[in-house]
Amino acid sequence: MFVETIAIFGVGLLGGSIGLAVRERHLARRVVGIGRDLAKLREAENRGAVTEVTTDLAAGVRDANLIIICTPVETVVDFVRQIAPVVGKGTLITDVGSTKASIVDGADKVLADGKGLWAAFVGSHPLAGGEKNGVLFAKADLLEERTVVVTPSAATNPDAAAKVERFWQALGARTVRVTPEEHDVAIAATSHLPHLVASALAAATPVSDLPLAAAGWSDTTRIAAGDAELWRQILLDNRVHTLKALERFEKVMAELRAALEANDSAALLRLLTQGKRNRDFVGN
Amino acid sequence: MFVETIAIFGVGLLGGSIGLAVRERHLARRVVGIGRDLAKLREAENRGAVTEVTTDLAAGVRDANLIIICTPVETVVDFVRQIAPVVGKGTLITDVGSTKASIVDGADKVLADGKGLWAAFVGSHPLAGGEKNGVLFAKADLLEERTVVVTPSAATNPDAAAKVERFWQALGARTVRVTPEEHDVAIAATSHLPHLVASALAAATPVSDLPLAAAGWSDTTRIAAGDAELWRQILLDNRVHTLKALERFEKVMAELRAALEANDSAALLRLLTQGKRNRDFVGN
Repeated sequence: MFVETIAIFGVGLLGGSIGLAVRERHLARRVVGIGRDLAKLREAENRGAVTEVTTDLAAGVRDANLIIICTPVETVVDFVRQIAPVVGKGTLITDVGSTKASIVDGADKVLADGKGLWAAFVGSHPLAGGEKNGVLFAKADLLEERTVVVTPSAATNPDAAAKVERFWQALGARTVRVTPEEHDVAIAATSHLPHLVASALAAATPVSDLPLAAAGWSDTTRIAAGDAELWRQILLDNRVHTLKALERFEKVMAELRAALEANDSAALLRLLTQGKRNRDFVGN
Repeated sequence: MFVETIAIFGVGLLGGSIGLAVRERHLARRVVGIGRDLAKLREAENRGAVTEVTTDLAAGVRDANLIIICTPVETVVDFVRQIAPVVGKGTLITDVGSTKASIVDGADKVLADGKGLWAAFVGSHPLAGGEKNGVLFAKADLLEERTVVVTPSAATNPDAAAKVERFWQALGARTVRVTPEEHDVAIAATSHLPHLVASALAAATPVSDLPLAAAGWSDTTRIAAGDAELWRQILLDNRVHTLKALERFEKVMAELRAALEANDSAALLRLLTQGKRNRDFVGN
């Protein structure tokens, strides 16, 4: 048992998978699913991802020792603001948002306000999920052997950060600790830019050519199937770092274009080899 | 039994998989593996992909009823030129190259020369394979339920084209028939441009950020692990159509950049939705 009660706000793919894993690993006696859509909450309850559900935020978080916010990035800080005055002493709050600087900064400000004397916030970003949404795709092993980035700020309570790391580890994940800013810079390159590129590639493919699309096209564009509104929020929130990553990408693309235009075998081979080297570094 | 003897020139992933499937499905009594590297040929023989091997091109093709050229695109026409004078009457030649116009045009010219009175050439492109090379990754079901594009030209013997289609179908593939030019235009958009983009994305990712690369990055860049020299040949051979596809991609990327720079939610959502629509059209 990790804590007595865990509250999960937002029981989709990630929230649902966390709930399933918590229950399978007996990390909490109660797992409260909180949300606005009762039908979705009932679905999560039927799947066994939570032990009880409520649409009443205050009631849902009141007895929780650990609150995990699994809602779109633009809504996280607002939710922290709403629950800060009602949570119990020593409550730990974390989130799973794909951006961290604005969320951690916002939550730090809310809690420094005096309204959240009882709670500690620690930003998290599990590098798992995918383009399929909804609790129907949730699975207890979603986080197993995946990386969860934990992003304490200067204002974060160190004990709280360590406890949040132990929670993710208890779900089978490994944790990496960086600052919120370091997170956003790296994830702009490894996730947010790839999303832009995949989306552009899919959009730029003439529909009449799609019957000849095979595994290469499907792999390269897969993440473009992600929820457009969620990604709009992520990309705008991290637009500065994403634009910087985009600049690096555009530079390589311009070199590739020049090599093709000039029929320059040596330059093209050099660029393809550079891409292959980075790709091979990561492996499958 | 489809024919008595099949010769496969180049027994890597694709050639090896074709050999395994031919043998598993009893489509030929003899499957001759031809190549320059005896060690690789022996590996294919040990895996059961071929029944005999030779480094002597003329000897290897002499008795073949069907010859499948599975070598890099730049070498295909030259191989047709070498074997045309020595093959037997009614021999069918096909290839598996990722580009078709230059190969089919080159082979047509060789055979119209009078040197290849006995043989018919039909261009093929199986949409299967992947970034892993070598007969060790070959498998008998590689082509099952995959698409093979067959590209007869105005000079192609219609019976030969139909027979080549039946061969791929006998391996469990479905065939699509388009002209070599139509093939190159569509594949530029669905395969060659994605390769450029995946390679640029991998090359543009700072190595220090790679520890935070997760499934999204891995999917989007997977094909960049392909053999750089093979892809150099493909991209240069199809550079005109690839550059046209690149122009469409750059246009969408410029719109995405403008939306990010202007913090324009509506434009960004519209572009992401357009990408998602095309991606969802193809499915998994």
